Amino acid sequence: MHVPTYSDVKTASEIVHRFAHQTPVLTSESLNRITGAELYFKCENFQKGGAFKFRGAINAVMSLSNETAAKGVATHSSGNHGAALALAARKRSIAAHVVMPDNAPDIKKKAVAGYGAEIIFCTPTLETRESALAEVIARAGATEIHPYDNFAVIAGQGSAAKELLEEVDDLNLVLAPVGGGGLLAGTALSVHHLAPSAATIGCEPEGADDAYRSFHKGEIVPSTNPRTIADGLLTSLGERNFAIIREKVDQIVTVSETSIIEAMRMVWERMKIVIEPSAAVPLGAILEGKLAARNQKVGIIVSGGNLDLENLPF
Amino acid sequence: MHVPTYSDVKTASEIVHRFAHQTPVLTSESLNRITGAELYFKCENFQKGGAFKFRGAINAVMSLSNETAAKGVATHSSGNHGAALALAARKRSIAAHVVMPDNAPDIKKKAVAGYGAEIIFCTPTLETRESALAEVIARAGATEIHPYDNFAVIAGQGSAAKELLEEVDDLNLVLAPVGGGGLLAGTALSVHHLAPSAATIGCEPEGADDAYRSFHKGEIVPSTNPRTIADGLLTSLGERNFAIIREKVDQIVTVSETSIIEAMRMVWERMKIVIEPSAAVPLGAILEGKLAARNQKVGIIVSGGNLDLENLPF
Repeated sequence: MHVPTYSDVKTASEIVHRFAHQTPVLTSESLNRITGAELYFKCENFQKGGAFKFRGAINAVMSLSNETAAKGVATHSSGNHGAALALAARKRSIAAHVVMPDNAPDIKKKAVAGYGAEIIFCTPTLETRESALAEVIARAGATEIHPYDNFAVIAGQGSAAKELLEEVDDLNLVLAPVGGGGLLAGTALSVHHLAPSAATIGCEPEGADDAYRSFHKGEIVPSTNPRTIADGLLTSLGERNFAIIREKVDQIVTVSETSIIEAMRMVWERMKIVIEPSAAVPLGAILEGKLAARNQKVGIIVSGGNLDLENLPF
Repeated sequence: MHVPTYSDVKTASEIVHRFAHQTPVLTSESLNRITGAELYFKCENFQKGGAFKFRGAINAVMSLSNETAAKGVATHSSGNHGAALALAARKRSIAAHVVMPDNAPDIKKKAVAGYGAEIIFCTPTLETRESALAEVIARAGATEIHPYDNFAVIAGQGSAAKELLEEVDDLNLVLAPVGGGGLLAGTALSVHHLAPSAATIGCEPEGADDAYRSFHKGEIVPSTNPRTIADGLLTSLGERNFAIIREKVDQIVTVSETSIIEAMRMVWERMKIVIEPSAAVPLGAILEGKLAARNQKVGIIVSGGNLDLENLPF
């Protein structure tokens, strides 16, 4: 298994830097007061496509040879990765084929279509999704870009923490949400190299705690019947992601739905920025006291800001 | 009547600069594409207290003599000015007395109380409000700081446009919402001086179009029974505000409720920032085609981001 290291994050960062936003790091006096910590929010909700996913997607797309790229890229995604890959493909003027469950939210379908990708709808089961993806790959010769279990994707996601650590010195903790593990693994690579004394902590909803259980069992425990408002964090860990997480992540903590919603609301009200539930999980962990954050300098990767405004939890 | 000029804005800016945030100017590729204009959003939703109001309040509070300041400040406000004045008074360690209608939203009451001001509740009529204010002024010897019809407040509000114009060159239009006229008058002073070829345009809800009617009639037409979701824009124009607006504002346009809500939603979804309905009125005017904004460089003062998340229009 071919797993990226920090040097791959560094190479990826050069590509990411050319196409993605260097997102701002925001602070909030009132959230510092409430938590007793010094919080630095790396705002990937302001990233192109509204989430960190564009970093990995653009790195994956730009890393292909001309010959391979010409045949297009393909993926399955019900969320931000599909839109990010569509946007990345457009930047290279190649085709993107995105397999989506037919019950995906309209807003996600519109985003993918709006970036010019071909959408292949399937029923929302693993089997039909995989056969639909295999079919389009066979038909077009497209290269599959997995949402997280992909070398170039993980390396690209690590660029967010790299930027954060280059901007803010002496962080004690760096927090990222964990779903498939692309963001957390990439973050861990950067933290481990650039701030070796800082701890990397994965933050996961209680109702989708497969990464927590995998971390403690030492092998991947699949996500079965996850239940959480954090719709970006439903999937099981990828192989490459777990290999990095086992080795370089210090802790995984779980967070209740109440704390996720409270954190999301607090960020909207106090910081006046729109973040999605998945992005609120790290602050939720602090509010819930799952972390010794008091008097610490804490970096938080705010993963994205895409959500349906007509279906808010408050 | 003593009315500020640009030189007062300049003096105020030095005070504002010491205590307030220099808020960011944000752009959005997708909103530029949708509107065909080049938009620059001066984000006062990120200002202390969540609105531009802190600029005027801090200038007014810091401009008082020590002797006068020691007796405290007072105002009536159901909205952002009360919180801003409370916060400004705390910065000078003096008392603030805020008369609020007893039906004001809980979130506003909490904000004012949270900044340590004394709240005097009254029934929501002009008469009881004025008598309650007169009573506290007589009792404490406090100085009244009117929310908009106040020399130092207008000068302070002008600092937002000053910062915008110093950061972005060659704007063709500068847009601000208009309620009592503090922000619009201050903006006009800065635009008139710093970018004389640019037009200053006031943007007002159709359902509270007293500034539009005042502007065309040449005298203040009171706001009677206003109906709009833009709860910061319900009041009549102040005398000082109107004197400046008559002379230095180029146009006032009115905007439908549908366009205000559409604009607010678009900013939340595309820019991932939380703005209040009043702050969405200028973009609403552009979306509605009330302005010749196509191919123009347009500055927009985003007035604030305070609103009740449990009571959203979408």
